[in-house]
Amino acid sequence: MYFFLRKLYNRTVNKGQKALHLCNVKGGTNMENFIFENSTKAYFGKGCVSQYLPDVLKQYGENVMLAYGGGSIKRNGIYEEITEILKAAGKTVTEFSGIMSNPVYTKVLEGAKLAKEKQIDLILAVGGGSVMDCCKAISLAAVYDGDVWDDFWMKAGTVSVSPVPLGIVMTVTGTGSEMNGGAVITNEIMKIKTGRDYPALNAQFALLDPLYTYSVPKKQMVSGSFDSLSHMMEIYFSLPNEDNVSDDINEALMRGVIRDLRKAIADPDDYTARSNLVWASTMAENRVLKLGKKTDFECHLMEHQVGAYTDCNHGCGLAVLHPPYYRHIYKDGLPKFVRFATNVWGIDPTGKTDEELALAGIDALADFIKEIGLPTTLWELGVTDKQQAEEIADTCFLSPGSYRRLTREDIREIFASAY
Amino acid sequence: MYFFLRKLYNRTVNKGQKALHLCNVKGGTNMENFIFENSTKAYFGKGCVSQYLPDVLKQYGENVMLAYGGGSIKRNGIYEEITEILKAAGKTVTEFSGIMSNPVYTKVLEGAKLAKEKQIDLILAVGGGSVMDCCKAISLAAVYDGDVWDDFWMKAGTVSVSPVPLGIVMTVTGTGSEMNGGAVITNEIMKIKTGRDYPALNAQFALLDPLYTYSVPKKQMVSGSFDSLSHMMEIYFSLPNEDNVSDDINEALMRGVIRDLRKAIADPDDYTARSNLVWASTMAENRVLKLGKKTDFECHLMEHQVGAYTDCNHGCGLAVLHPPYYRHIYKDGLPKFVRFATNVWGIDPTGKTDEELALAGIDALADFIKEIGLPTTLWELGVTDKQQAEEIADTCFLSPGSYRRLTREDIREIFASAY
Repeated sequence: MYFFLRKLYNRTVNKGQKALHLCNVKGGTNMENFIFENSTKAYFGKGCVSQYLPDVLKQYGENVMLAYGGGSIKRNGIYEEITEILKAAGKTVTEFSGIMSNPVYTKVLEGAKLAKEKQIDLILAVGGGSVMDCCKAISLAAVYDGDVWDDFWMKAGTVSVSPVPLGIVMTVTGTGSEMNGGAVITNEIMKIKTGRDYPALNAQFALLDPLYTYSVPKKQMVSGSFDSLSHMMEIYFSLPNEDNVSDDINEALMRGVIRDLRKAIADPDDYTARSNLVWASTMAENRVLKLGKKTDFECHLMEHQVGAYTDCNHGCGLAVLHPPYYRHIYKDGLPKFVRFATNVWGIDPTGKTDEELALAGIDALADFIKEIGLPTTLWELGVTDKQQAEEIADTCFLSPGSYRRLTREDIREIFASAY
Repeated sequence: MYFFLRKLYNRTVNKGQKALHLCNVKGGTNMENFIFENSTKAYFGKGCVSQYLPDVLKQYGENVMLAYGGGSIKRNGIYEEITEILKAAGKTVTEFSGIMSNPVYTKVLEGAKLAKEKQIDLILAVGGGSVMDCCKAISLAAVYDGDVWDDFWMKAGTVSVSPVPLGIVMTVTGTGSEMNGGAVITNEIMKIKTGRDYPALNAQFALLDPLYTYSVPKKQMVSGSFDSLSHMMEIYFSLPNEDNVSDDINEALMRGVIRDLRKAIADPDDYTARSNLVWASTMAENRVLKLGKKTDFECHLMEHQVGAYTDCNHGCGLAVLHPPYYRHIYKDGLPKFVRFATNVWGIDPTGKTDEELALAGIDALADFIKEIGLPTTLWELGVTDKQQAEEIADTCFLSPGSYRRLTREDIREIFASAY
């Protein structure tokens, strides 16, 4: 499937750019001016759903929409636990299931229609990033008279209505959608997939039980955690280069994810590691890391195109593209790549030039990707030949990056290296 | 002045304990369950007051209480800038000035009475921690029929009323009060000083312009930044010891404050360093670092007593007490002190025992305190002799720390070492 129309995509806003309307980016080298807000109340820890949800539900009216995806929550017991809590709370439950990966706009409209009909007081989204994103859009579409796609995803809008209150029970970690107002929606008729982060669409509450994330397969745990790491890197490798609190925190989170993912692979029942991976993933996308930063997210943009062609797993696509992308741009952002090598990977700088050090950091990332068992070539993702790699490269339209304005030829070279 | 009645103080909650009702601390060693919320919208950066305040004011009614301290804002131009913005916005301004360091409960009641009389729609607190804290209490007292001291500071209450909306323009950094609901209030009749953190008392917005903090004397900049560092250390040196995201972030912030304070001392006009110090201070107390942590804050409790006797600067008191306190307890929390030495101070562990490493970390902290020109003995703070040091020690009532339950004799020894 080829979801993107070139001209239109160029006008849309990718996941990284989502943060821009929250950050007053002026250019220059200091920590930039910014606005920070995050209204979601997060409940974190094992057993938090049964511990807190009953009380939280008292704050909302009778009609609850229980929204979820393909039904895995029925197999792992989460559905049963939540419906019993809803029943005990005396709620009238309207189910809305079948939210797909890369949720489509017609699904948003379907949910909004149902929410209106049933006069829903609370949308309870149970799932991962796709379910959360879809429900954020539904919460707005259910109270908005116009076309939300046109007014809020095709362009940056101003949310002046009060969306239907939204609560989240997270079951898959990685996207960080649980604590922001971001929603990536695909308009399957227009063939455009785009995301925006509206603070008004933040969930009112999010229940994050690390044990809920245990039921996903190992590969999903690994690729989800790499998605987190990728969010951190995409934010880190952007201006400003000067020392700033956001980058300081980012390095700490990156080191933590590397440490904890290794531990979680060695022992999937290591609660300390698993819970750290969940909270680090939330911290990566709750806007704290983006404050004062430009946040290019170029690799995410390129991966979206690979995903559009191959339907590959998002984390796997990111794993393939990051090292060749960084090898292509590191000279333009050398000081930051040197920091990455020493501060994130702990590489001894003795006797190395800055370039050698920067490359050693990228090598360490590539080695880590191999170590955790993620793919390293486009070929493994299902890209059939070099010509198709170039074809996909040509569908990428990137906004100018902090370190380099990638040309068509640059992107082709990155894809050729990744094949 | 000796502000504390022993028995009552023992029942009150110190600044560190403030976070406990937000964190479900169960004991044990994993990252504990927690609840995180922070409703304050922060506007950060140079020029942010003139850039954002006019628009922000449109969200509130006509009657604004302009609250500030001793009038320094009239000398540095901040008062003029803000009153002009308020005037241009068509607000009716009621001034409430003279908020003192360690704000007293009668001042809270005075402000609340005025806020009621003038039907205040927004309290605009312009100043540092004392002004912010006093205004948080006023925002509650102005709408609460009972006695807020009895119901919210002498014990943990439930805020079921809607406080008067509060906005903050920060002029002094260090306390971190700008992005939490914490308010340390002194009841001068009962001679009790105590703090609580109520999420409902978070300011609705906070304007943080690093340039506004330039007008304080160098000593205040240094001691304020040490206060920030102390908040970080007090949170860090508490259970759990296992790797967790909060400690990871904490180490990054500590390293950053050390780096940026050195730079700011070398060049007070270094905007990068000054702005980092402001945001790091906010991050230290916006609850993010406390998530899943026990947060003892024992050194703050001891310093409060020193301050009560000598009226010393808070950061200076903390600087004197931290090294001897840590030398006294490090064996009980050895793994964390080893981490502190290597991860915060970058000390090479080669050839060192854990104890040697831990002590080297504490030495590095003590050396840093000397380097930045803060006092290192109680004598410098005005404690007259060893007997008085012991007398002050005997007024300290600490809750059990994570690493050691300090006895009366322990505290005396710490004070003797500090004299």
